[in-house]
Amino acid sequence: MHIDLNCDLGESFGAYTIGLDGEVIPYITSANVACGYHAGDPLVMQSTVAACKAAGVAVGAHPGFPDLMGFGRRNLAAGPKEVKAFVQYQVGALKAFCAAQGVALAHVKPHGAMYNMAGKDIALARAIAEAVFEIDPKLILLALSGSKMIDAAQALGLPFAREVFADRAYEEDGSLVARGTPGAMIEDEDLAIRRVVGMVKHGTVTAVTGKEIPLRADSVCVHGDNAHALEFVKKIRAALEEEGIEVRAMALG
Amino acid sequence: MHIDLNCDLGESFGAYTIGLDGEVIPYITSANVACGYHAGDPLVMQSTVAACKAAGVAVGAHPGFPDLMGFGRRNLAAGPKEVKAFVQYQVGALKAFCAAQGVALAHVKPHGAMYNMAGKDIALARAIAEAVFEIDPKLILLALSGSKMIDAAQALGLPFAREVFADRAYEEDGSLVARGTPGAMIEDEDLAIRRVVGMVKHGTVTAVTGKEIPLRADSVCVHGDNAHALEFVKKIRAALEEEGIEVRAMALG
Amino acid sequence: MHIDLNCDLGESFGAYTIGLDGEVIPYITSANVACGYHAGDPLVMQSTVAACKAAGVAVGAHPGFPDLMGFGRRNLAAGPKEVKAFVQYQVGALKAFCAAQGVALAHVKPHGAMYNMAGKDIALARAIAEAVFEIDPKLILLALSGSKMIDAAQALGLPFAREVFADRAYEEDGSLVARGTPGAMIEDEDLAIRRVVGMVKHGTVTAVTGKEIPLRADSVCVHGDNAHALEFVKKIRAALEEEGIEVRAMALG
Amino acid sequence: MHIDLNCDLGESFGAYTIGLDGEVIPYITSANVACGYHAGDPLVMQSTVAACKAAGVAVGAHPGFPDLMGFGRRNLAAGPKEVKAFVQYQVGALKAFCAAQGVALAHVKPHGAMYNMAGKDIALARAIAEAVFEIDPKLILLALSGSKMIDAAQALGLPFAREVFADRAYEEDGSLVARGTPGAMIEDEDLAIRRVVGMVKHGTVTAVTGKEIPLRADSVCVHGDNAHALEFVKKIRAALEEEGIEVRAMALG
Repeated sequence: MHIDLNCDLGESFGAYTIGLDGEVIPYITSANVACGYHAGDPLVMQSTVAACKAAGVAVGAHPGFPDLMGFGRRNLAAGPKEVKAFVQYQVGALKAFCAAQGVALAHVKPHGAMYNMAGKDIALARAIAEAVFEIDPKLILLALSGSKMIDAAQALGLPFAREVFADRAYEEDGSLVARGTPGAMIEDEDLAIRRVVGMVKHGTVTAVTGKEIPLRADSVCVHGDNAHALEFVKKIRAALEEEGIEVRAMALG
Repeated sequence: MHIDLNCDLGESFGAYTIGLDGEVIPYITSANVACGYHAGDPLVMQSTVAACKAAGVAVGAHPGFPDLMGFGRRNLAAGPKEVKAFVQYQVGALKAFCAAQGVALAHVKPHGAMYNMAGKDIALARAIAEAVFEIDPKLILLALSGSKMIDAAQALGLPFAREVFADRAYEEDGSLVARGTPGAMIEDEDLAIRRVVGMVKHGTVTAVTGKEIPLRADSVCVHGDNAHALEFVKKIRAALEEEGIEVRAMALG
Repeated sequence: MHIDLNCDLGESFGAYTIGLDGEVIPYITSANVACGYHAGDPLVMQSTVAACKAAGVAVGAHPGFPDLMGFGRRNLAAGPKEVKAFVQYQVGALKAFCAAQGVALAHVKPHGAMYNMAGKDIALARAIAEAVFEIDPKLILLALSGSKMIDAAQALGLPFAREVFADRAYEEDGSLVARGTPGAMIEDEDLAIRRVVGMVKHGTVTAVTGKEIPLRADSVCVHGDNAHALEFVKKIRAALEEEGIEVRAMALG
Repeated sequence: MHIDLNCDLGESFGAYTIGLDGEVIPYITSANVACGYHAGDPLVMQSTVAACKAAGVAVGAHPGFPDLMGFGRRNLAAGPKEVKAFVQYQVGALKAFCAAQGVALAHVKPHGAMYNMAGKDIALARAIAEAVFEIDPKLILLALSGSKMIDAAQALGLPFAREVFADRAYEEDGSLVARGTPGAMIEDEDLAIRRVVGMVKHGTVTAVTGKEIPLRADSVCVHGDNAHALEFVKKIRAALEEEGIEVRAMALG
């Protein structure tokens, strides 16, 4: 029994710093490295790959929409052709920094609005899966468990990993309860951890309705934005290991 | 005896079109494809690689400064570390479109102000050569014949190709006569072609002072910006072939 | 009886040229000048204002989404606060070039996706009307006849001008028939002109269903993108004048 | 006897935060607000103007080079025409947020590399002075005491204010000792404050050579980047007031 802990890293840009990258790296197993469209710049990408390499953390690309001002969080009406090209551009850019440092790029996780849109839109999902597959069919697509991106990867024969969120409630169909809806966030950290342990051990979770639903978890999304988030990463890692669950980077399925 | 004809392609951006790419492709042997910093966008990069593949034209990356508004032509005081990262980012991005289409990236030619600055500054030249070498030590660095970039590639063991300009006069030391200086441009097309033929056949050219100087030519820079430039490409290609000089992409030295 | 002919100008950017601005200026009465977000740059804005001043064409700001790669044509999920700030930023930037040349900024017309979204979304429409009003309550908001932007301007007491499209069909409720729908485009130029004449003279037009509907026209949108568009501008201007309709810039209501 | 304390504000961008703006505002009298080219975005500009208005701090524009990744600190080979247009664009954008909030824009201080380049290059200095003058001939140009920008403003009849740096050593000709040179930085805070008091009271300062030189000070540049800088602002303000020097915004000369 094992699980991956993934975290968005390398989101600084020029003179701007975001994230406690150095502090969170020792506790995670996979990093999603921003690729310069919604965050990150070439020097940041280079040093983030170096930091991951030094710590033995798996490096993934974290492509987003070309919207630095909006941090890639605003939906953008880009079609499948554009999104495919956006992904190839960014994955390629990060891959170069990996190659230069002798690191194998492990996975791709779309960011923000692109992640959300492609999770529900099979045309965008296919575009992203194809973008990744064409660059390297052994790359893992890391995407929301149960989303259209998982379907698209599966259909294409692209390796994938199902991502779950410790601090989010789920609908009965396995989708996330929308932010802002009452009960959308799991505020109780111990409960959040118990839920993740349950997903890993039993492949199930209790939906917001109270019904137990199946939910497969290959990777848990954690954050290194602030001291509080950092504490939670340490806590969930310790709890998982205590439960006899190995915390390790995603392996090919 | 052989020579390469290289041309900057893929400089369109979004709704903006520059260059008669489709018309010039049949006459050239190598394309320098813009990588999104000074020109080009992901969709343009993708379609330019496709057009080169279809025509059997070798694909190279054409990284520039992050200055779309200035088309990468304005000097930017970026140091070697930044320039190295800029180059790896852009070369990686283009390499992804090549990989996705089963095309081998052949060379890298810095663009505009980066080309000019690195031609005279050994620290920038080394940074660029290292950037390319670390991604793939078999990539060819295409740079001004006699420039610091050629020195840097040679010192590093990176393949290189020496670029010459048909329409530019040379100083006795092999550097280009600065634009704006009287006599800097070779306006007479027949003379321009004879000069190139001389460089290829004898490895020499007449400097602006009248003295014959050594100048090695592996590739001639041509342009596809307008109808006039296009005519010159056809003319120089025909003249070279008539002289028994094979026009073909750069080979590894 | 009078009508304004408005055209998007100043859409070039750096080395990239779009539009036959110089050719179309003599035939129009109002220019919507791009402000650097979806198109245009400071030098282009400056020279476009100068060209309009020389020709006696009224100058308006043409703010868009910050999406140069998509030319401001892609919907972006920016909220009212952001859109208001985007508009103030861009209108202010253009106003500086007007002030520097002693030109009074006359109107504001949102561009592309911003125009379309705010035409249907009253919150965005209000944000834009407020943005303009706060800068100068005498500026005219130029927007789709019958759209939410006209409603918002009216509610705020901001001057407005109702824009119509010669080459587009209308639904019975006065909205545009969506592009791509059969019959959406009026291909017959003479019919297009007769429709505009009818809108100006009688305030009505025949909807796509065949029903005659009320449609008020203060300004007709024309284009200067290509030779064909340019010919149409000349033709519609001549036809309007022949009908005794004065072609002049929008006046305050 | 009076002096202005100016500070760069509004340098945050999208999700990225820089500067303790809220903390430093109570201690300064003039704010240089970033205008979106090297830092700042429309929402940040809007809220920074609001915060300055609430605190009675004079608002100035802080235009820079279009180089967000380099924070406007890298020299860019833009000519006088471009720089003039860059300045008008950015000053206009900020002026709109001021107008919308009933705030009078007070001054313009070029940022970073633009400030440094125009301080030594009379053509750039003139371009900037003209850019400001054409927008509003009553705006104050805030620039390095003794620099070419002061000369250009004076020649044009544009109001100006001479800026000094508490923590920098001066050459005998009144220019700043280049960073990196031994003795370039005044590390002793008490000495730094005594130097500023001397500049204000006597119009002189001791150059790095030991010679007393004339140096006029209308405004002292302070910083709000970190807790240490913030402490210094409080300290210098208290010291100036204790010396009977009024701390107030720049007045027209």
